[in-house]
Amino acid sequence: MAVGLKPLGTLYPVPGFELGVASAGIKKVGRRDLVVMRCAPGSTVAGVFTQNAFCAAPVLLAKQRMQQPVQYLVTNTGNANAATGEPGLAAANAVCQALASQVGCSLEQVLPFSTGVIGEPLPVDKIEQALPAAIADLTEDNWALAAEGILTTDTLPKGASLQVEHEGVTLTVTGISKGAGMIRPNMATMLGYIATDAKIAQPILQNMLLDATNQSFNRITIDGDTSTNDSCILVATGQAAMPTLEKAEGTLYHKLREAIFSVAKQLAQAIVRDGEGATKFVTVQVNGGATAQESLDVAYAVAHSPLIKTALFASDPNWGRIVAAIGYAGLANLDTSLVQVYLGEVQIVQDGGRAASYLEEQGAAVMQQAEIDIRIELGRGSCDETIWTTDLSHEYVRINAEYRS
Amino acid sequence: MAVGLKPLGTLYPVPGFELGVASAGIKKVGRRDLVVMRCAPGSTVAGVFTQNAFCAAPVLLAKQRMQQPVQYLVTNTGNANAATGEPGLAAANAVCQALASQVGCSLEQVLPFSTGVIGEPLPVDKIEQALPAAIADLTEDNWALAAEGILTTDTLPKGASLQVEHEGVTLTVTGISKGAGMIRPNMATMLGYIATDAKIAQPILQNMLLDATNQSFNRITIDGDTSTNDSCILVATGQAAMPTLEKAEGTLYHKLREAIFSVAKQLAQAIVRDGEGATKFVTVQVNGGATAQESLDVAYAVAHSPLIKTALFASDPNWGRIVAAIGYAGLANLDTSLVQVYLGEVQIVQDGGRAASYLEEQGAAVMQQAEIDIRIELGRGSCDETIWTTDLSHEYVRINAEYRS
Repeated sequence: MAVGLKPLGTLYPVPGFELGVASAGIKKVGRRDLVVMRCAPGSTVAGVFTQNAFCAAPVLLAKQRMQQPVQYLVTNTGNANAATGEPGLAAANAVCQALASQVGCSLEQVLPFSTGVIGEPLPVDKIEQALPAAIADLTEDNWALAAEGILTTDTLPKGASLQVEHEGVTLTVTGISKGAGMIRPNMATMLGYIATDAKIAQPILQNMLLDATNQSFNRITIDGDTSTNDSCILVATGQAAMPTLEKAEGTLYHKLREAIFSVAKQLAQAIVRDGEGATKFVTVQVNGGATAQESLDVAYAVAHSPLIKTALFASDPNWGRIVAAIGYAGLANLDTSLVQVYLGEVQIVQDGGRAASYLEEQGAAVMQQAEIDIRIELGRGSCDETIWTTDLSHEYVRINAEYRS
Repeated sequence: MAVGLKPLGTLYPVPGFELGVASAGIKKVGRRDLVVMRCAPGSTVAGVFTQNAFCAAPVLLAKQRMQQPVQYLVTNTGNANAATGEPGLAAANAVCQALASQVGCSLEQVLPFSTGVIGEPLPVDKIEQALPAAIADLTEDNWALAAEGILTTDTLPKGASLQVEHEGVTLTVTGISKGAGMIRPNMATMLGYIATDAKIAQPILQNMLLDATNQSFNRITIDGDTSTNDSCILVATGQAAMPTLEKAEGTLYHKLREAIFSVAKQLAQAIVRDGEGATKFVTVQVNGGATAQESLDVAYAVAHSPLIKTALFASDPNWGRIVAAIGYAGLANLDTSLVQVYLGEVQIVQDGGRAASYLEEQGAAVMQQAEIDIRIELGRGSCDETIWTTDLSHEYVRINAEYRS
């Protein structure tokens, strides 16, 4: 039921970044559920991770290891290795050690990632047995298969790729992501991997990733549930013929930043488009807040309201539910007479009440579309924010009522 | 689909408080949708109202008029008269004025209440035409019919009543409520009316109502949507043979306070039991918070999570979703190794991980029940909080996708 999510387009290989995929049979026999990624020596790596206090064992380990050079990433699906305590940490380390031994690096140079059911022991044996196949499969030309290999309840693989030219050198930025449920800001994708062959100093790379996620993965919500396993990794292999980018300035910096933003945004939106049970892709734009936070508060109140989400599912322009959500978003001294609301190009609320010009048929026509823009003008300041979300359908309930059975 | 909500029991009349019901045909012809209530002269009246910034015209007027003696309450269903601006205020006043003229009181002695669809003009004519029938129907013995007359998407009327003896005098506390969707704290019932024949000074009465709602209506959530029209009114007619209660102390004060708490709690729980599409009645108890607010933050994170709500619907003891919600509730420096979680009497999480003794069948057996207790021990302090909520079912989506059609 993905909304406007196209099959994977071209995913350009990134020199110095290889991917290998295998089946460990963690949840289903034969399913591709193990992905190994290799970063060429000299790569810089940036990461952002979930802020959930119950963050998973692999997240704890990956965060610690960001300080030293990273050589390998290993990802399994079907089991989140979260809320598993000390045995969970030991299991994640056992996987990293098995990989390190086979490829000849140190344990600390491997970052682990897991996604799937929370609270069950990680089947380390199955993963260890499948590692040789994943390692043997490592190649730069394997993004599409890896995009499949990291999926759980997703219905389609998610990838984005683009190239920029700079002084005669072609630079590539390619990424993949997964996630369809337990999606909400604070590192909202369950997993995202982006690589470039540019040479970028680690502090610059980390800031680029933070900025990019704040405008992409941290601006999406499906069900308001922040996962225990969210992680997004940005790798710069430095294989391109260019000097190392050491400062956050200049044409090259801005070109790369734009490219990384664009890939992150496409990957984040792909997650929403493939949201569990989604029949609508909804952009909620809140303009004119006194602070960015209050614009976000209103946007998330709208995006999380089950009443609005079911109205979106029903294609019902029930704008009363939108003003109710604006009203309870917690803004101090909100002057409702300054509030304007638009559905697409149609103004439905004018100065806090029903727009004089508004006809129900106009709203209904917008709501029939698969992609819907809700724009709210608060009239309190100059802070604008945009987030993306889905509707709440019967299919969402079915998927989540049946997930473990 | 109400969960454990019994047919109305005995609702004792409250001397000095009369109710009259009529059909104005606001949304459906023939449906009882207009209720007038009369408070005997000398009554004291307390009220709490929604904190939604888009609060409805009747809420704005009722709040203003709490300062003077109240004689009448007039309630319509089928139209919320919210987000209707100046015309909405004029419409609510027109209804109050029509009632005041017919009964011979002043406009300011009438409190208006509305519930139903947001953003549509109130059909004043229809209401005015039905007022004489409602006035003619006024009697102390009409609580059950009034409980029906205030419903919207509710499937059953909601009432609670009890009597206490004090020094040979019988005192009565009776109340009714309505609400099944757009239910969340900050005055969570859409409408609640409680009356007693005790003599209680207004400041004492207002504090009793605040305390009672904070432990009842403000501790329930169905969908996390705070309504524009929530109001709860407590009337003390003073008809009982007793001196006026002027201080918040003494046996009588505590007896009355207990009685009012008990009625408010029953009415609030009745709203949850009749929650839209509810198949489960869920008590979320969070103990050991450092502050009341952090216990509430955890409780609401659990109660609002669509993933937990769908697991409850599916009777799936998916405890990983519970720890994920605890983890994202925003508690600073949460030591997850101190967290314990119980489903009914079964410990599912011990010291932050799966309880060693836990068997899936035990959790499944609890989840099969219609009434489920989730107890979370945070181990950070001594603040305990309890809230009540429902699951998220196919029926919830159906009701809210079809509400206006």
